[in-house]
Amino acid sequence: MSERQQLHLNLFIHDTGHHEASWRLPESDPRADLDLGFHQRLARIAEDAKFDSVFLADSPALWGDPARRPSARLEPTVLLAALAASTTRIGLIATASTSYNEPYNLARRFASLDHLSGGRAGWNIVTTAGDAAARNFGLDGQPLHRTRYERAAEFLEVSAKLWDSWADDALVGDKDAGVHALPDRVRPAGHHGRFFRVEGALNVRRSPQGHPLLVQAGSSEDGKEFAARWAEAVFTAQPTLEEGQAFYADVKRRAVALGRDPEHVKILPGIVPVIGDTEAEARELEAELDRLIRPEYAREQLAALLKVEPERLAFDAQLPDDLPTEDDVEGSKSRYTLIVELARRENLTVRQLIGRLGGGRGHRTFTGTPVQVADTIQHWFEHGAADGFNVMPAVLPSGLEAFVAKVLPILRERGLFRTDYTGRTLREHYGLPRPGDRYALASAVPASV
Amino acid sequence: MSERQQLHLNLFIHDTGHHEASWRLPESDPRADLDLGFHQRLARIAEDAKFDSVFLADSPALWGDPARRPSARLEPTVLLAALAASTTRIGLIATASTSYNEPYNLARRFASLDHLSGGRAGWNIVTTAGDAAARNFGLDGQPLHRTRYERAAEFLEVSAKLWDSWADDALVGDKDAGVHALPDRVRPAGHHGRFFRVEGALNVRRSPQGHPLLVQAGSSEDGKEFAARWAEAVFTAQPTLEEGQAFYADVKRRAVALGRDPEHVKILPGIVPVIGDTEAEARELEAELDRLIRPEYAREQLAALLKVEPERLAFDAQLPDDLPTEDDVEGSKSRYTLIVELARRENLTVRQLIGRLGGGRGHRTFTGTPVQVADTIQHWFEHGAADGFNVMPAVLPSGLEAFVAKVLPILRERGLFRTDYTGRTLREHYGLPRPGDRYALASAVPASV
Repeated sequence: MSERQQLHLNLFIHDTGHHEASWRLPESDPRADLDLGFHQRLARIAEDAKFDSVFLADSPALWGDPARRPSARLEPTVLLAALAASTTRIGLIATASTSYNEPYNLARRFASLDHLSGGRAGWNIVTTAGDAAARNFGLDGQPLHRTRYERAAEFLEVSAKLWDSWADDALVGDKDAGVHALPDRVRPAGHHGRFFRVEGALNVRRSPQGHPLLVQAGSSEDGKEFAARWAEAVFTAQPTLEEGQAFYADVKRRAVALGRDPEHVKILPGIVPVIGDTEAEARELEAELDRLIRPEYAREQLAALLKVEPERLAFDAQLPDDLPTEDDVEGSKSRYTLIVELARRENLTVRQLIGRLGGGRGHRTFTGTPVQVADTIQHWFEHGAADGFNVMPAVLPSGLEAFVAKVLPILRERGLFRTDYTGRTLREHYGLPRPGDRYALASAVPASV
Repeated sequence: MSERQQLHLNLFIHDTGHHEASWRLPESDPRADLDLGFHQRLARIAEDAKFDSVFLADSPALWGDPARRPSARLEPTVLLAALAASTTRIGLIATASTSYNEPYNLARRFASLDHLSGGRAGWNIVTTAGDAAARNFGLDGQPLHRTRYERAAEFLEVSAKLWDSWADDALVGDKDAGVHALPDRVRPAGHHGRFFRVEGALNVRRSPQGHPLLVQAGSSEDGKEFAARWAEAVFTAQPTLEEGQAFYADVKRRAVALGRDPEHVKILPGIVPVIGDTEAEARELEAELDRLIRPEYAREQLAALLKVEPERLAFDAQLPDDLPTEDDVEGSKSRYTLIVELARRENLTVRQLIGRLGGGRGHRTFTGTPVQVADTIQHWFEHGAADGFNVMPAVLPSGLEAFVAKVLPILRERGLFRTDYTGRTLREHYGLPRPGDRYALASAVPASV
């Protein structure tokens, strides 16, 4: 079975699990969020299971109310560096913000990660919604959505110049002549733009993958355009097959319009597998978790996301009719719309909506037996909604262990998932080409004239 | 023998060695600078030898001329995270710039490193001299020396607020009540200053050491004042015993004047041990390395440091008389003065000066037999010039291996260096107290009123 017909799996690590209340289960360690050993264990389970990659989300601010759930997170680039030293094959994807970093620093950290890990680094590019983060960086509130994406576009341009500032063959290491590198194969970035001026070459040579795998996760209009231009993998929240298919077709079409091969943009919807040996057992596991959510905390968070006063959200009523539209929202636009549409489509009360969001924050929850979960995965994969999945276990590590022990063997039996790694780098796992060296390109031009 | 009477050793890792031309030796891999395995090997040798810590220098710009010597470096915080996962006891000190980072991001990376490593993180605080770095961050040239230090002071204030934003006992993890942390034990930074506005609490809890060990390495007036205020360890280049003694007394005096215990500022001069079984053998090793320096490259770098045209430096003449004074220099002030004074004191020609700098960049070279090197270390340690040493082998790993195999046993026999670790954290290795929790302090006040 060829690489093209196989699906890709990413493990989204999120402390004790993606369910809001997972930390309250007996198995969970409330300190897991800052514990290297816990993350090493998850990465090793995923690597033993031959996942393509692990992934860490991020924002440079407290993650919600510290009373309610773990609100601390290890900074992802340093955590992934530690995981690079603790694993040998699995890809390592860290989220980092283009709004609250400088290109020279961030391009360098990712290039360093790619060297450290032998070509296993990926960057999930985010523009970071929210006023809390903005206020940690000298601003009064978040910049406009559009402005954040304009800065992100220029940030990527600068990063690409920095990653390519050393030709692949710049280092010669000629000890006899005393020449370490060829100076004319090291070129300054020389970037002068609206947001950034960056003069120098990067102080890290071109990395094993050329540059890290580029991942994107925003699904607004700006987000999809950005993904079509830059992303090699897209994480997305798609609650139904139909929406998943529409999104998949839309992003691939946009990539083609920009002259890219649609196979070089992998679409990975998030799934929250809740697995039981019987369907009833799976439902019971889901219900047990939902009972652990403290509704008054959850309502406060929902209200903040919907830009309304918490008192306007009655637990046993549906959402108010007069909510703002996506255009009025400067935060996580696509997440906002997804939540409102989910509530309206299924006529959910606020309490029911909280249960759905606590489980997967709008991602599709696949609750059922291993065969049912495998069937749904196969169906999405074979019907134009996914090149693979961003696996978000409700509880970690037990939900991951159940997925690996019970669902993966079925997918393998059906020839849908690898039995071993065939490549060394993260791009090789995803079947993506290594980006070419701009120097090779530049020297090819005069030769053909 | 008590902790107080023993000396401290830090390994300064600098790719294939601190000698300019070390990469040209047969044993050296020209790609070692970006190779995790090479750094793991060095860290493990140092840990097996019970060094207090390893240390990485840094600047966010190319490190000199790529033709001449390795000019790339893995970003230190990510490299140390990988080394944290590869070692268990040794301290890990990374350099990072206060001029080209944001406090929220950097305070978070170091807090993350301290959690990851179980309390082994240290931060060498630098203000970053040089126009090349400035031009990678939107500036035309480096800010004034004084301005850089003012920014550094405020950067540290903000960082301290962020590191202390969670009380040590903030996390309760009460699963039954659904309370993860006590909200009144998590306090926003609320910093509004000249350089920074940082509103929020850090999204990393207080770390095993409270905050990373603070290290400083500038020896200008501003640098010494900064060290006296903040530093718990000071790296310094002191070419003679007398200068070392004067510096040691000066920094300790300044710390006392600020109300600090002088024992809580450890002074660690750099030493470049060049070891031979006979003195002649050591001298031959030193001479062999110096022959590998390409003088025309080295002269260019020296000229840039001294702010003169390269042609004004004749190889076989002494330095010109009309060099600028330290006050005119906005870069590495103390390094500038050290080099000029070294040349004048010893009447060195430009060629001789290049040899001396190529070997240790102004740090004291201890060339001789193991006993001679151990004698010098003991002499400095027992005569008020050092609490320990920043060991900078001319060639890595062989110079480190020689030091460990030949000099350390002598120091141990004399009771001057530990035979095993007695503590777990980096501060414990250096015999420094864990900084108190400001919450404990705050709540102690009402109790005593």
